[in-house]
Amino acid sequence: MTLGVGMVGHAFMGAAHSQAWRTAGRFFDLPLTPDMAVLCGRDVTTARAAADRLGWRDVETDWKQLLTREDVQLVDVCAPGDVHAEIAVAALEAGKHVLCEKPLANTVEEARAMVAAAERAQAAGVRSMVGFNYRRVPAVTLARRLVEQGRIGEVRHVRATYLQDWIVDPDAPLVWRLQVERAGSGALGDIGAHVVDLAQFVTGDRLTGVCGLTETFVRERPLPSGEGRGPVTVDDAALFLGRFSGGALASFEATRFATGRKNQIRLEVNGSAGSLAFDFEQMNELQYFDGGDDAEVAGFRRIIVTEPAHPYAGAWWPPGHGLGYEHTFTHEIVDLVRDVAAGADPVPSFADGLQVQLVLDAVTRSAAAGSQWKEIDA
Amino acid sequence: MTLGVGMVGHAFMGAAHSQAWRTAGRFFDLPLTPDMAVLCGRDVTTARAAADRLGWRDVETDWKQLLTREDVQLVDVCAPGDVHAEIAVAALEAGKHVLCEKPLANTVEEARAMVAAAERAQAAGVRSMVGFNYRRVPAVTLARRLVEQGRIGEVRHVRATYLQDWIVDPDAPLVWRLQVERAGSGALGDIGAHVVDLAQFVTGDRLTGVCGLTETFVRERPLPSGEGRGPVTVDDAALFLGRFSGGALASFEATRFATGRKNQIRLEVNGSAGSLAFDFEQMNELQYFDGGDDAEVAGFRRIIVTEPAHPYAGAWWPPGHGLGYEHTFTHEIVDLVRDVAAGADPVPSFADGLQVQLVLDAVTRSAAAGSQWKEIDA
Amino acid sequence: MTLGVGMVGHAFMGAAHSQAWRTAGRFFDLPLTPDMAVLCGRDVTTARAAADRLGWRDVETDWKQLLTREDVQLVDVCAPGDVHAEIAVAALEAGKHVLCEKPLANTVEEARAMVAAAERAQAAGVRSMVGFNYRRVPAVTLARRLVEQGRIGEVRHVRATYLQDWIVDPDAPLVWRLQVERAGSGALGDIGAHVVDLAQFVTGDRLTGVCGLTETFVRERPLPSGEGRGPVTVDDAALFLGRFSGGALASFEATRFATGRKNQIRLEVNGSAGSLAFDFEQMNELQYFDGGDDAEVAGFRRIIVTEPAHPYAGAWWPPGHGLGYEHTFTHEIVDLVRDVAAGADPVPSFADGLQVQLVLDAVTRSAAAGSQWKEIDA
Amino acid sequence: MTLGVGMVGHAFMGAAHSQAWRTAGRFFDLPLTPDMAVLCGRDVTTARAAADRLGWRDVETDWKQLLTREDVQLVDVCAPGDVHAEIAVAALEAGKHVLCEKPLANTVEEARAMVAAAERAQAAGVRSMVGFNYRRVPAVTLARRLVEQGRIGEVRHVRATYLQDWIVDPDAPLVWRLQVERAGSGALGDIGAHVVDLAQFVTGDRLTGVCGLTETFVRERPLPSGEGRGPVTVDDAALFLGRFSGGALASFEATRFATGRKNQIRLEVNGSAGSLAFDFEQMNELQYFDGGDDAEVAGFRRIIVTEPAHPYAGAWWPPGHGLGYEHTFTHEIVDLVRDVAAGADPVPSFADGLQVQLVLDAVTRSAAAGSQWKEIDA
Repeated sequence: MTLGVGMVGHAFMGAAHSQAWRTAGRFFDLPLTPDMAVLCGRDVTTARAAADRLGWRDVETDWKQLLTREDVQLVDVCAPGDVHAEIAVAALEAGKHVLCEKPLANTVEEARAMVAAAERAQAAGVRSMVGFNYRRVPAVTLARRLVEQGRIGEVRHVRATYLQDWIVDPDAPLVWRLQVERAGSGALGDIGAHVVDLAQFVTGDRLTGVCGLTETFVRERPLPSGEGRGPVTVDDAALFLGRFSGGALASFEATRFATGRKNQIRLEVNGSAGSLAFDFEQMNELQYFDGGDDAEVAGFRRIIVTEPAHPYAGAWWPPGHGLGYEHTFTHEIVDLVRDVAAGADPVPSFADGLQVQLVLDAVTRSAAAGSQWKEIDA
Repeated sequence: MTLGVGMVGHAFMGAAHSQAWRTAGRFFDLPLTPDMAVLCGRDVTTARAAADRLGWRDVETDWKQLLTREDVQLVDVCAPGDVHAEIAVAALEAGKHVLCEKPLANTVEEARAMVAAAERAQAAGVRSMVGFNYRRVPAVTLARRLVEQGRIGEVRHVRATYLQDWIVDPDAPLVWRLQVERAGSGALGDIGAHVVDLAQFVTGDRLTGVCGLTETFVRERPLPSGEGRGPVTVDDAALFLGRFSGGALASFEATRFATGRKNQIRLEVNGSAGSLAFDFEQMNELQYFDGGDDAEVAGFRRIIVTEPAHPYAGAWWPPGHGLGYEHTFTHEIVDLVRDVAAGADPVPSFADGLQVQLVLDAVTRSAAAGSQWKEIDA
Repeated sequence: MTLGVGMVGHAFMGAAHSQAWRTAGRFFDLPLTPDMAVLCGRDVTTARAAADRLGWRDVETDWKQLLTREDVQLVDVCAPGDVHAEIAVAALEAGKHVLCEKPLANTVEEARAMVAAAERAQAAGVRSMVGFNYRRVPAVTLARRLVEQGRIGEVRHVRATYLQDWIVDPDAPLVWRLQVERAGSGALGDIGAHVVDLAQFVTGDRLTGVCGLTETFVRERPLPSGEGRGPVTVDDAALFLGRFSGGALASFEATRFATGRKNQIRLEVNGSAGSLAFDFEQMNELQYFDGGDDAEVAGFRRIIVTEPAHPYAGAWWPPGHGLGYEHTFTHEIVDLVRDVAAGADPVPSFADGLQVQLVLDAVTRSAAAGSQWKEIDA
Repeated sequence: MTLGVGMVGHAFMGAAHSQAWRTAGRFFDLPLTPDMAVLCGRDVTTARAAADRLGWRDVETDWKQLLTREDVQLVDVCAPGDVHAEIAVAALEAGKHVLCEKPLANTVEEARAMVAAAERAQAAGVRSMVGFNYRRVPAVTLARRLVEQGRIGEVRHVRATYLQDWIVDPDAPLVWRLQVERAGSGALGDIGAHVVDLAQFVTGDRLTGVCGLTETFVRERPLPSGEGRGPVTVDDAALFLGRFSGGALASFEATRFATGRKNQIRLEVNGSAGSLAFDFEQMNELQYFDGGDDAEVAGFRRIIVTEPAHPYAGAWWPPGHGLGYEHTFTHEIVDLVRDVAAGADPVPSFADGLQVQLVLDAVTRSAAAGSQWKEIDA
C-alpha cells in the first residue's frame, strides 16, 4: 500500500525531505510505500524543475489545491515559518497527515492553533509531527535511550549550544532569515529551537523557566537587491539560562556569529550517575561517562554509534561506516510512516513543538524585560 | 540522454552502488541521466526482491545476458573478486563501459588481462574505472588537491592503517571472506588495497618496493553451516613498509583484529613544507599543518570539509552539515558519468587497480620469503 | 640579591606555591633570588613538618610575627579566603609585598579595603598581586596575546565553564569548602572566580552586568566528624550570563556536579575576525581559527604551545614537551619577582581581584533576586 | 639518611634529572633523602654555573674524581651515549649505584659490558637503572598495569611511532646528534629507543625479530661553525616491523622529518579482549577499549590519569590537574631511591637497556641488508 505525499516548498528543507522520502524505503522496511505525488511551489516553472530534480511526479502552485487531491494522504510542510499554521491547520482539517518543519510556527498563538487542530484531527486518526530532525541523529537517539535506562541517574546539568558563523561578515546581505516578518526570529527560532528540543528530548523533561538576552551585532545590512541597506530585525544571537522541572540547571546559546563554527551543535548532560556529551561536528559519536566505572578505568567513552545495537544504524552499513546530516530526515520519515501505518502518534508532536515555542517566547520576553526570569506555562 | 546501467551483484557493494546511482543526479548536474535498467543476480527471486528494494527495473540471472542488452551501456561489477576479470573483460569487449569494484582482481594475472582489455576498449571510446571509493571522501580529495598545489612540499613520510575488529572473536564463522579461493586474500586485499590506493592517490606517487609480514591469528573457525570447523586460508592482518619513487618512506597496516576499531582508516603524509592527516572516524575533517605558518600560531588545522570551496561539498548541504560513507559512491558515479559523457578516461583506471594489485602481490611474496624486500614493477 | 618570602598556609595552595618558589629560579633568570625564609601555620608541629617537606627554613605560628621579620620582604597568602583581607592589609601596611591567593576576599567590602591598602602601599613601592594562576597557562597567555594583536577582531562571544565533580556523591562530607562562613561561597567563588578572571584577562575587557542562578543540589551532608549531618550553606553550581563593555555576550558556569569532569576549564572566544578555544584538559594546546584563512584550508589550528615563540615555554623543554598544572604558579612567581625588582605593578592586581569579586557579588545578588539583571560598578 | 648523588653532564637531560632530584622528596615519601652533592662537567666555569642553577653543591671536572668521593653513593650519567659505558662500568666497579640515561650505549658490545658490570655489582648490593623516562608517564604505567591485569587479553598488535620535525629545514646545522661517532645513530637510537622500550614495557613481552629501513633525507648540512657543510652520518628516519614472542605483530617508526609533529609519541596495543592507546601530545590521558562492554555503550574511554587510583598521580594534585614532561623523571628518581633503600633491583635494568639495543642493532642490520628479517637474540 502506498502513502501519497504532497510537499510544500522546495528549498533547503525541501531537498532534505525529498532525499528522505526517496531513501527511507530503500534501507528500512516500511509498512507503506511513500509515493512522491506532488510538489507544491508558487512558480510553476521553478516548481516543475525542482520536482524533476527532487523526484516528485506532479506539481501544484496553490497549496489549497494540494489538499483536494486524492493521491495525497500526507502533507509535508517545508515552507517558511510564517505560513506553517495556515497550511498545517487546513491540511489536518482536510484529513491529511502533516509533517511540519520546525519551528512549528512563528508565534505561540499560531502554534496553539496548530496543536488544537492536531488534537481534533487525532480523533479522526489523522497524524501530525514536527520536524526536529536532530533528534534522529543515532547518537542523540542513543543519548535519550541511555537517559531512559537510568544510566546517568538524576539530571543535574544541561549545556546546549548551536553555533554558526554565516553572517559574521557585516556585508552579508539582508536575506529573509534576517527579517522578523518572515522568519519570526533570528538565531533563537532558527537554531535555538533545535537545541531546546534536543535538551528536552534527551532529558525527557521540560523547561519551566528561563532568563535570557539577545543581541543584534550588525544592525544594518545591504539589501539583497544590491541597492541601499536595510535594518536587521531579528537577533544575531540569543543566550539563556533555564531550569527543568526535574531540578536540572541549563544554559543555552544560539548564534550566527561564532567565527569558525559552521554548524556546531553541542549538548552535554550531567547526571548523578553519569554524563553524556554530543557534538554534531562528530555526529556519529556519543560521549558517555559511567559514574559506576572503577576509578582506575573511568573515562568518557567515545561510542561510535554505528553498531546494529544502536538506533537506526543497523539498517545502513556495517559498523564504523558513518552517516551524514541527511540521514536524520530519513529516520524521521521512517518513524512517521510507521506510526501512520500503525495508527500511533508520532513524536515530536505539535504539542512538543508548542512547548519549544513557549520556551523561545519566554526567552524573547525575558530579553525584552532586562533578562527577568519568565516562567513557562506547562 | 540516458545512460543505461546494469549491475552485477546486490550485497553490500550492490546496495552502496544503487544508492549512488539513485542519488547522483539529485544533487549534481549530470550530462547523462542514469537509467537503472537491470540488476543481475544468480537467483531470480532474490534478485527480483533486491531490484525492487534497490530501485532496478529489470532482472537478469546470467551476466552474459546483460551484455547483450541494448538498454545497458555501462556494467557495474559488484560481484566478489574471483569473477571480476571474466565479467569485466567480456563487458568491455561487448562495448560496455565498466565500473568494477575493488580489488580489481584476485590475481595479478587477471588484473593484467583486465588492463589489456581496458586499453583495447579505450580505443573504441569505451571507459573503465575501478571503485576505490575512499578517494572520493571530500577530505581525501582535498588532501590530494593540497599535495598537488605543493602545499606540503616534497613528500617524506606516509603512514596508512586500516583497522577493523570484526573477527576478534575466535568463534566468528568461516565466511567466504576468510577463504582464499573466493576472497583472494584477507585483510590485505580487502582493506589493505584501499589504503595502498589512498596513499598513492594522495601523494600522486607509486610504491616501488615493499617488505612485509602477514599473520593468521585464528587458524580454524566454525563453518557457517554450524557443523565442524574449517581452516582460515587468508591473512587476518598484514603489515608492510615501502618506498615511493619520489623518495618517501611508508608504513601500512591492515587488520581485522584491532579490538575497538570498527572501520578506522588513517592516513598521514608528512612533507618538507607541511603535513596532512585523515581519519575516517571523522570523515568530514582533514588535518593540515602549514609549515609556513608563524611559529606562534602554527598548528594542525582541523578543516571541516563541507564548504563550497571543497570537493563535492557544494552540491550537498550548507557548511557544517556532514556527509556519510555512502556519499563516496555517489561522487564516484558523478565523476564516472561525466567522464563517459565527455569521452574522458575516468580515474582510478584499471591500470591504477593493477598497480595496487602489484603492491599487494609484492607484500604477499615478501611475507612468504621472510619479509624480504620485493621490488614492484613499474 | 635575595627576596625573602614568608608564606601563610601550607595546604593545597601552599604546596603549589612552594613548588613555584623552589623552581622559578631554576629555569628562569630572576633579578632577585627567592629566599624561602618562613612558613606560617597555626600548629607548630604541623607547620615544621610542612616547612621541611616544602622547603622553608623557619616557622612561625602567628602571621603577625611574620610581618615583623626583617628577612621577609614578601608575604604569600595561601590561607583560606576569610583571613585574606586582614593578613594582606597588615602585610602591606608593614611594607611587605603581597601575593594573595584568589579569591581576593570573601566579600566585596573586604576586597575594597584590600585594594585601598594596595593603592596606599604602591606609593611606597610596595607591590601586590592576586593569584589567578590559570592566566599563566602558556596557552591562555598566548590567547591574550593573540587578542591583543587583533587577530580575532572585535570580541562577540565568550563561553566559559569550570566543571568539577568531587561532591556528586551525596555522602561526601561537609568540609569547610561547603560552609559559607569559611568559604564565602561555593562553586561560584572557588572556581567561578577563575573563569571570570580568565574571560576578562583574555578579552582585555570587563563585565558590565550579569544575570544568574545558583543551586545547591545536596542540601545536607555528613559532618566530617562522622556524627550526624549538617546543612550545606554554599552553592553547588552557579550559571550566569553577562555583557562585556565592548559589546560581547558571555555565558559562565561553575559546578561541582558535572560527573566525569574532574577539573575542566573551557574558554571560547569568538571575534569578528577569528576565534580561540582553550580546554584545561589539554592545557598545552590552544585552538585558533583565523577568519582570514582561505576557505579551502581554514580550520581551527591546534597550537601546541611549547615553542620558544610561546609565552614561558622557551625556559623549559624543547618543543612538544608539555607542562603541567604547577607550572602556572612558577610563571606567576617569575613575573612577580621580576616586577618587584623592576618596581613595576604586577598583574592581576588587587583591583583586578576586586573586579572579579564584584562580578561574583552581582551574580549572587541576581540569583537571590530571581535572576534579575545586575549592573557591575566600574 | 641521605643518598649522595653525583651527576655527569648538565645539558638537556642534566636539567631534567636535576629537577627530578630536587622535587622527588617534596611530593613523595622517600626512605632516603637525596643529597645533590656534585655536578661533573668538563669546563669548571660552565659546570659551576650549571651547578648553581640546577642546585648541586660541588663541582668536579673529571668523572673519575667523582667516583672517589665518599659523599657520592649514586652516579647519574647524563653525558652523551659514547661515554656511557666507560663511566657506568667504572662507577659500578667503584660501588656506586648508577642511573644511566638512554640509550644504554652506542653499541651492543658496550651495552653487554655494562650489563655484565651491573650483574657483578648487583651481587655487592649495587643497583643500576637505565633512564627510559616515558615508562613513568602515569598513563603509560597505567597501560602496563591494565595489560598485567589481563584487561586487553592476548596482545595481537602494537603500533608505535615517535615523530619529531626539528631538522626538516635542510639548513639546520650539523649538530653532534647528526654525527654517528657521537650519537651512535640518529632518530633510531635517540627516539626509536624510547618506543621500543615503551612497547616492550607495556606488553611485558620482547621483540624476537624485525625488518626495517632507514633513510637520511638531507645528506649534507651546514657545519655549526658556520663555514662549509659536512655529511650527515646518521639516519633521519627509521621504520621497522617486528614480531613479539607472544605472537603480536608490531610496527615502529622514528623520524625527525614529520613536519608539525614536535614530540609525538604514539602507542596503540590491540588485544583479544581490549585495546589501549596513548599519545604523548595528551600525556595525561589513556584511551582504553574494553571488549567486554555492551555493544550499546562500548567505546574507547578517555581516562584522565590524575586520580589517586592511578600510578604516581595521588602524590601530586587533585584529580584533573595534569602533569608535564619533567614529572616522568621525578617518578624515575622516586622508584630508584626506593629500590636502592629496599635493596631491590630497579627497572628498567641495564639488561632491559641491552634488549632495546639489540632491537636497534637488528634494525640497523636489516636496513643495511635490504630489509632482510633479523632475529633478535634472547
